[in-house]
Amino acid sequence: MRGYKKPTVSIIGASGYSGAELTGLVLGHPSVKLEKLYAFSQAGKRVADIYPAIGSDIVYERYEGGCESDICFLALPHGEALSLVPPLVSDGRLVIDLSGDFRLKNTEEHLKFYGGKKSPEHVMPYALPELFHETVRESKAVSNPGCYATSIILGLAPLVKSPLARLENVACTAISGISGAGRTGKTELSFSEMSGNVRAYKVGAHQHTPEIMQALDTDTLNPAFGFTFTPMIAPLVRGIYTVLNVRFEEHLSVSQIRGHFREFYRSAPFVRVRDTMPEVRHVAHTNYCDVHVAAASEDGSAVIVTAIDNLVKGAAGQAVQNMNIMLGYDETLGLL
Amino acid sequence: MRGYKKPTVSIIGASGYSGAELTGLVLGHPSVKLEKLYAFSQAGKRVADIYPAIGSDIVYERYEGGCESDICFLALPHGEALSLVPPLVSDGRLVIDLSGDFRLKNTEEHLKFYGGKKSPEHVMPYALPELFHETVRESKAVSNPGCYATSIILGLAPLVKSPLARLENVACTAISGISGAGRTGKTELSFSEMSGNVRAYKVGAHQHTPEIMQALDTDTLNPAFGFTFTPMIAPLVRGIYTVLNVRFEEHLSVSQIRGHFREFYRSAPFVRVRDTMPEVRHVAHTNYCDVHVAAASEDGSAVIVTAIDNLVKGAAGQAVQNMNIMLGYDETLGLL
Amino acid sequence: MRGYKKPTVSIIGASGYSGAELTGLVLGHPSVKLEKLYAFSQAGKRVADIYPAIGSDIVYERYEGGCESDICFLALPHGEALSLVPPLVSDGRLVIDLSGDFRLKNTEEHLKFYGGKKSPEHVMPYALPELFHETVRESKAVSNPGCYATSIILGLAPLVKSPLARLENVACTAISGISGAGRTGKTELSFSEMSGNVRAYKVGAHQHTPEIMQALDTDTLNPAFGFTFTPMIAPLVRGIYTVLNVRFEEHLSVSQIRGHFREFYRSAPFVRVRDTMPEVRHVAHTNYCDVHVAAASEDGSAVIVTAIDNLVKGAAGQAVQNMNIMLGYDETLGLL
Amino acid sequence: MRGYKKPTVSIIGASGYSGAELTGLVLGHPSVKLEKLYAFSQAGKRVADIYPAIGSDIVYERYEGGCESDICFLALPHGEALSLVPPLVSDGRLVIDLSGDFRLKNTEEHLKFYGGKKSPEHVMPYALPELFHETVRESKAVSNPGCYATSIILGLAPLVKSPLARLENVACTAISGISGAGRTGKTELSFSEMSGNVRAYKVGAHQHTPEIMQALDTDTLNPAFGFTFTPMIAPLVRGIYTVLNVRFEEHLSVSQIRGHFREFYRSAPFVRVRDTMPEVRHVAHTNYCDVHVAAASEDGSAVIVTAIDNLVKGAAGQAVQNMNIMLGYDETLGLL
Repeated sequence: MRGYKKPTVSIIGASGYSGAELTGLVLGHPSVKLEKLYAFSQAGKRVADIYPAIGSDIVYERYEGGCESDICFLALPHGEALSLVPPLVSDGRLVIDLSGDFRLKNTEEHLKFYGGKKSPEHVMPYALPELFHETVRESKAVSNPGCYATSIILGLAPLVKSPLARLENVACTAISGISGAGRTGKTELSFSEMSGNVRAYKVGAHQHTPEIMQALDTDTLNPAFGFTFTPMIAPLVRGIYTVLNVRFEEHLSVSQIRGHFREFYRSAPFVRVRDTMPEVRHVAHTNYCDVHVAAASEDGSAVIVTAIDNLVKGAAGQAVQNMNIMLGYDETLGLL
Repeated sequence: MRGYKKPTVSIIGASGYSGAELTGLVLGHPSVKLEKLYAFSQAGKRVADIYPAIGSDIVYERYEGGCESDICFLALPHGEALSLVPPLVSDGRLVIDLSGDFRLKNTEEHLKFYGGKKSPEHVMPYALPELFHETVRESKAVSNPGCYATSIILGLAPLVKSPLARLENVACTAISGISGAGRTGKTELSFSEMSGNVRAYKVGAHQHTPEIMQALDTDTLNPAFGFTFTPMIAPLVRGIYTVLNVRFEEHLSVSQIRGHFREFYRSAPFVRVRDTMPEVRHVAHTNYCDVHVAAASEDGSAVIVTAIDNLVKGAAGQAVQNMNIMLGYDETLGLL
Repeated sequence: MRGYKKPTVSIIGASGYSGAELTGLVLGHPSVKLEKLYAFSQAGKRVADIYPAIGSDIVYERYEGGCESDICFLALPHGEALSLVPPLVSDGRLVIDLSGDFRLKNTEEHLKFYGGKKSPEHVMPYALPELFHETVRESKAVSNPGCYATSIILGLAPLVKSPLARLENVACTAISGISGAGRTGKTELSFSEMSGNVRAYKVGAHQHTPEIMQALDTDTLNPAFGFTFTPMIAPLVRGIYTVLNVRFEEHLSVSQIRGHFREFYRSAPFVRVRDTMPEVRHVAHTNYCDVHVAAASEDGSAVIVTAIDNLVKGAAGQAVQNMNIMLGYDETLGLL
Repeated sequence: MRGYKKPTVSIIGASGYSGAELTGLVLGHPSVKLEKLYAFSQAGKRVADIYPAIGSDIVYERYEGGCESDICFLALPHGEALSLVPPLVSDGRLVIDLSGDFRLKNTEEHLKFYGGKKSPEHVMPYALPELFHETVRESKAVSNPGCYATSIILGLAPLVKSPLARLENVACTAISGISGAGRTGKTELSFSEMSGNVRAYKVGAHQHTPEIMQALDTDTLNPAFGFTFTPMIAPLVRGIYTVLNVRFEEHLSVSQIRGHFREFYRSAPFVRVRDTMPEVRHVAHTNYCDVHVAAASEDGSAVIVTAIDNLVKGAAGQAVQNMNIMLGYDETLGLL
């Protein structure tokens, strides 16, 4: 436990959807203590004013820099964490950043997808515990994965990290709940526009694509590897439902692939390799990622389906999972 | 107009969702007259008892065989039309069957996907007017396409019927509104189970797959051609949203493909090749199929997105479009 | 037909939800011609850019005042029609205003609920055709009722205009679809906030209350009459579902009240006095108002339930109904 | 703690929505141990097969009578608990029944609303802890309140149990989430029928009405007291949103009433008397009942609004709250 008594936690950017989910999880965590919630537009209000379901009387404070707590979570819009994280790290805080600011090693690619002013030193270890558990355990500051990225990487990692056959290409479509767009008032996200609607966006141009490629390190695997990603939103609040159309150089059977996934994730408490089709409602409000090998055919194609809750395993839950690992706690503490 | 005064219409199986949609369209059609509505479980009730929004006092009659009207639509569960259609055809009625019973030429494949007792003579011309306008015009009895099949075939036909480059494979995911499952009371289709949920099903095993292959006649194009289809349901009532991950042997640009689609559909009043992303709400309650070339990359992959209303262009609307063509009317009569 | 050939129509404020609904209805109307669509923020765009389901290529023009068409509909936010209507009336146009600007005779009450700069001459006949058919027929400029007001007045009018017994008080709760809030991007109307949610608002303080009292002219009936109104929004796009808890001085039976409603509305083509419970889906996308006497008990209380589509009978459909009457057409033309 | 070590719990009828909610709460409870889950149609399946979000491998056993656990919850359809409870009570189990079987003292009224074979001895204390805390604490077998009843009684109790002024009548409308109808496959509860829909039902005839009257003991208060109840379902899964139109003999101000509610519920941890309007999303997945005095006018009318989660405070959560009290635990244990 790195000699902590009951470590204290602050959340910077606590009033958005990820911040609120994190607030609830930290309040319910048996072995850390929530100390401060920092916000910007909502500073001065109580948690219960904006999120009465959480029922906490803590008042959001305006963030002026610094943080006295042992652990600092940052749940800010992309770009805003770049300047805030370094001083917290120098102060020796454990830092878990939920934004995209510190994920990409390739600065050029970062600027292409996110813009802003990132420089090469703005990189922190990529904290997807199912792949990088050791690195997370040894880090004092990490970058929490994106929601789409989590659902896609967990569905492909076994096939890339310990390949059964050469992967030729992957065509991925993923449906996200609308909370993924954040707590915002845009006409195109209003109930009147999204009820009964489905819409794809940023086809082949989503900022999670380089993050996925980096985590999978696909270059090492297959120079000709092709990846196509089509994100969509549908009329649900939470969840990411991902369909991975995978193409191998040779035919693999469903049971071969399924067995391989089981083996690969045998020690991952939150990845459930299931024999039945995942559904969003089966993972909503949980930190699970359900994975299913849905089909495989003679021509070498296969279909992998994954489901997560974008606000939990895709954001706040995974951040707490990382905190547990960094503190030397059981990975699942406060998450089951 | 084949010498009809105002042709009369009967609908057999009028109380399901497709039958009700058809009832509304025929009632609003300027040049045909709705004569009889036949049902089974709902026989004896008035349309307005089950579908007050239609506001018609016509009473559903129990179907005992035969039909006095000039045009007979059949909107029955798969299998039930097999024995009903032949006598109607011999009686010289114009017949439009919305079921899957008469779509597949390959009896073996039909039995594999639908079961039942189809025999080789149980085949009628496949009435997708954008591809087979002439055949429909010259037929007295046709098979109306399936909803998924319509959205997928219209997104692929230009690339298959007049290829720009050799198609290597297609990975298709399609989201259907829940009305596609029909007017039924299953727990897994209840509001409580489907609100906030997404679920894939019949991956690589949906009965529309052979229908799509038959309509595209892909064998002639590329013996190694691979097609993977993942159908899903999401929390909306109407609509099919289809993402086609297409892989060509060589790179084609978005504008090349888009121009090709424009040209291919230049005389198709209901296919809109759009420069912006389709959305289900843009086609809901209409007979339009919106098509968009969303992306294309160096590796030869491209993404085509289509959207239709499963009950209109995917069923009742297309059936009326076919009726218009068979009667020598303007294709769009009563549909705009 | 007042000697018109095919009267022409313009819509001022055509790009909001009511304006769009009106656009669709006028385009489908057999006996008027849509000439111009005026908008403000959306000026320069085509209808099909914002509402592809309408599929019209008409371009929204910036409104600079004036109108050459025979009929001018105004579908603007409250307050904006005050200055625009008078010149149109002087020009001899037929004017139908969908805002609240000209509904209230009592300027003081108007200012209390709407604010702005209304003066006493800013009043036009209240065009609820089921009550004021003659007035509408003889008017050249009318005020179209509010959505809640329509659903409530139609549920109470028979009991107030030709009372069966002295009305002591009415407690009304009404659920509105979220489109009632207009085409806007507010956080509290986002899909993420409203999915799974219900919220009351403006309890006892909604601007439709004086409009309802004025239309029912309750003062003449019972000086002590009490009316309580609780509006709510729930997760649906269209519709208003109204429950009227009525209290009479004496007991009346359900059949007495139901018979009275039937008689009162015998010549109202869009009011359906039903024996079964209304549902929003039964009136969605229609101009019907379904009315049902749900219960009546010994203590003199009774429950009346009504349902309408807020965008049709509650706005655009009723406006077209009024236009039909003003033009001497059949009231239902283009609406069934 | 009545000398228990860690008391054991069994749930009879664990596979319905209330049973599943109860399963999750008991699994998360720090001071009781879940021992057995009994079901009927689902016997033999694992919890995770039907409710993967709960993620428990416990297998539902077919209930054959009896129960070895210290606490037995029954979450069965109305009528099925009548014969099962008495033997459990004689065996000295702590029994909490969630059905309506043992709520009503008046057998005649029970038979009128529920039918079946209840006899006068089939009555257990009514366990609404905010009103009957002592009774619950001293009981070994209790009847858990109905969902509508909970939301209505908590909104009226302060005005009935310690009246500020004579109550003349109450007109109540309440909107329930569709999960209130249970885990069932009825056409009228399918997503396709309920999306975009609102429907009232059992107006003035709901089985919770006598339960409410009994709990409020209104006879003692005002022989002429009138109560009208209109239940509705809307397109949400969880929650009950209740509007109480209250009429007093004299005028009371909002602040008078609000202060009175605050005082009345000062020691009720789950009732929140709020200054702002309740919303379903504010109580969803919590055991809170939010109460708000929304308006009060000169004529003596007032509007009280309450919101609960029908599956938590309206069922499983309240059952756990009652268990805590019966075990001498803190009322909120495992519920915050």
